[in-house]
Amino acid sequence: MTSRKPLALSVKVLVFDNEGRCLVLKRSMASKGNPGKWDFPGGKVDPGETLDEAARREVLEETGLEITIGRVLGAAESESPTSRIAYLILEGHFVSGEVRLSEEHEEFAWVAPEDLHEYDLVSQLRAFALSRSRD
Amino acid sequence: MTSRKPLALSVKVLVFDNEGRCLVLKRSMASKGNPGKWDFPGGKVDPGETLDEAARREVLEETGLEITIGRVLGAAESESPTSRIAYLILEGHFVSGEVRLSEEHEEFAWVAPEDLHEYDLVSQLRAFALSRSRD
Repeated sequence: MTSRKPLALSVKVLVFDNEGRCLVLKRSMASKGNPGKWDFPGGKVDPGETLDEAARREVLEETGLEITIGRVLGAAESESPTSRIAYLILEGHFVSGEVRLSEEHEEFAWVAPEDLHEYDLVSQLRAFALSRSRD
Repeated sequence: MTSRKPLALSVKVLVFDNEGRCLVLKRSMASKGNPGKWDFPGGKVDPGETLDEAARREVLEETGLEITIGRVLGAAESESPTSRIAYLILEGHFVSGEVRLSEEHEEFAWVAPEDLHEYDLVSQLRAFALSRSRD
């Protein structure tokens, strides 16, 4: 219940297109964490970055899309033997671009929020995805 | 729905004592934001701090209590004319000390989680408190 492991921060972005679908990315089979699982774009916040800057940078790096940041949607966490990560989940809105994946991912899909639970998501996002399915 | 305001990060801590009650603080009437409202301890994460370091520092500064950090409980947000704040809400566990308030607060109470909704909380924490009341 209580941990003395350092707790780092990561942002995850639920990016919506103009039809209300959201973007999921399949992690590369060569990924050292959760290979082949589906994920949202996002990553660590660099020192000095605001959360929206970090979220827009990570989405651009991982998908090639320009977005704006909307509401705070939720939180999650994951744990490794040496550390923990807290995830702040933000709403993003597509502005421009076409999806071009980095080597971190090998597939993508635009999904209706109520169908998110049909994807084999990384474990830390499953509860969040289920709550979106019920909205 | 979408904002271009910078999004800063703050941690809030739901500190539990050994009887399962949690700590709420009444903001000073001289406070420039939400005077007289009830709040959880917490504040901004300094550059280079991990989330658990920031949370333990803020709780010590505002309450005099030493705590350990548990799970990630939720997220919230607030907005001012020039910026937005995302709140990551963490579970804390009392370790040692007696409550000594800073000038930021003028009253405190240890409350059963199901009674949190009876306090006039800052607006950004109301939905979270209501969800805890139902647990």
